[in-house]
Amino acid sequence: MGGDFGASPLVEGALWALKERDFSLVLIGNKTILDPLIPVDMANKVQIVHCEDFIAMDDGATAALKRKDSSIYLAMEMLKNKEVDAVVSAGHSGATMSLATLKIGRLKGISRPAICTLMPRIDGNKSLIIDAGANVDCKPENLFEFGIMGYEYAKWILKYPKVRIGLLANGEEECKGNENTKAAMEILRNHPSFIGNIEGNNIFDSSVEVVVCDGFVGNVVLKTSEGVADSIIHLLKQYIKSSLIGTFGALFMRGVFKKLKKQIDYAEYGGAPLLGIDGNVIICHGKSNAKAMKNAIFQAISTIENSINDKILSALQLHKMPTK
Amino acid sequence: MGGDFGASPLVEGALWALKERDFSLVLIGNKTILDPLIPVDMANKVQIVHCEDFIAMDDGATAALKRKDSSIYLAMEMLKNKEVDAVVSAGHSGATMSLATLKIGRLKGISRPAICTLMPRIDGNKSLIIDAGANVDCKPENLFEFGIMGYEYAKWILKYPKVRIGLLANGEEECKGNENTKAAMEILRNHPSFIGNIEGNNIFDSSVEVVVCDGFVGNVVLKTSEGVADSIIHLLKQYIKSSLIGTFGALFMRGVFKKLKKQIDYAEYGGAPLLGIDGNVIICHGKSNAKAMKNAIFQAISTIENSINDKILSALQLHKMPTK
Repeated sequence: MGGDFGASPLVEGALWALKERDFSLVLIGNKTILDPLIPVDMANKVQIVHCEDFIAMDDGATAALKRKDSSIYLAMEMLKNKEVDAVVSAGHSGATMSLATLKIGRLKGISRPAICTLMPRIDGNKSLIIDAGANVDCKPENLFEFGIMGYEYAKWILKYPKVRIGLLANGEEECKGNENTKAAMEILRNHPSFIGNIEGNNIFDSSVEVVVCDGFVGNVVLKTSEGVADSIIHLLKQYIKSSLIGTFGALFMRGVFKKLKKQIDYAEYGGAPLLGIDGNVIICHGKSNAKAMKNAIFQAISTIENSINDKILSALQLHKMPTK
Repeated sequence: MGGDFGASPLVEGALWALKERDFSLVLIGNKTILDPLIPVDMANKVQIVHCEDFIAMDDGATAALKRKDSSIYLAMEMLKNKEVDAVVSAGHSGATMSLATLKIGRLKGISRPAICTLMPRIDGNKSLIIDAGANVDCKPENLFEFGIMGYEYAKWILKYPKVRIGLLANGEEECKGNENTKAAMEILRNHPSFIGNIEGNNIFDSSVEVVVCDGFVGNVVLKTSEGVADSIIHLLKQYIKSSLIGTFGALFMRGVFKKLKKQIDYAEYGGAPLLGIDGNVIICHGKSNAKAMKNAIFQAISTIENSINDKILSALQLHKMPTK
């Protein structure tokens, strides 16, 4: 209910997913808004759980913890009671995270759940940034756990045959990094797939699959990337418009631009899993369109089918942090 | 001497600058390498200070402090003795920073010198990131000083009629940020041009002129931006190549691509000033071409002509940090 464009594109995406795959869809929100969005021939395939309230984007995340009749609160309640296997939300991400952590609880051995976001790479694959915004101040141990979770997600959900973990820093050399990343490096070394420090450009150049950073840096990376891509496209459009011959040339490049858009469009990527909680939660962009929602639902199904949390628990046992 | 492509493009750029403007050019380095790079008709306009040694890119920055016959050591020595008014280097940036700080010393009231890098904006202007890599672990007071220095540079060197200072964080809202940026915000508030938190995309969308962050985050932003821009151009080229009709269209878009390249090409921006030391030092990209060197020299001349350090000293007096 709390997405930037209301329920309509999200329900559209959910119904789209339902047409392509078989699963039980539960929509949690205001029945009077949701009902008209569902075609008569689909009505028997969708369960609606009615609630009056929802968390708006400008509400505080902590307020959400008390609003028991809000859609996200009810969703987490149902996840906790095993009435659903996964929650997908395009609403207030802070509220979703807080409620998930408090209602569902953390996985044993994980001190901080983290958001894991996919980024486009030049080889057509994706790299994964963890944490993309859940934890602004992190300890080295948190970064180690992010590495573990990211690795398992890349291996089991993205099905990468080879997964390399890199630690985002201000230089590739081992001596680079801030106090926090330098301490994290000492722990991450114990993971056989850890390749050391990486730089911002390595996120895109296919030299790494999992990018470990704190949520402050992760968010800055995400927004910076969005900003650069938007600016280049804005400038291209502007230059094309201002040149007659450029406009002519652009007519023939529609296919090229379409391919580029597809490769860098977040909607192709679905949502961002919240890893480290004892349940499956996918957080979508507030501006998600139907396609993004459809892909996020497929992602949720994949995390269930592949029991990602069991994989993380086993990995934590295997790569125990060295005792101090 | 220590640039990635040797002395040749740098000397070419310096001579190019000399043709366009009147100043005294001193080249510091190996005479047997430099001499052949200078045409006979320019020889009387260039002073060469010979030295045998130079700091290679893979040398340690601290080693540079002892190598008294290296080109950067001699350059700093000459700056200290007022034999030159500014130093421009495309060599080892760590060595340049360390030597500048130790030989020349900090400006009174500045606890940490910082590198200030220009980024392209969609309106054709530039925003300025400070610190772009000199200080990985910063205190809130350092971030405050970065704001002051960046503001004065944007006002007096870039000649912006309006300068807004933003604090790079993981959200625009006042409650966003990590412990460090939250504390910095409390001090930066005292500057009348401070507009609060900004996000990564705001670096490019013309909503701010000065972007304050620590050098770890600043470096990640720089490298991420480079990575995104390179990837988009790589993908565009690849898609154009693989499509006959796209290749045809691209022929007519040469002008458009040229304009785009010019707008995002670092060489147009010259170098990055090291602010906060008691002298004028411009640090260039190791891969600088002749044009980048020419522009960096013009930048150095501008910092001298506009007495940027006096401006910073006055600003520190005006916007004194609130006493605790």
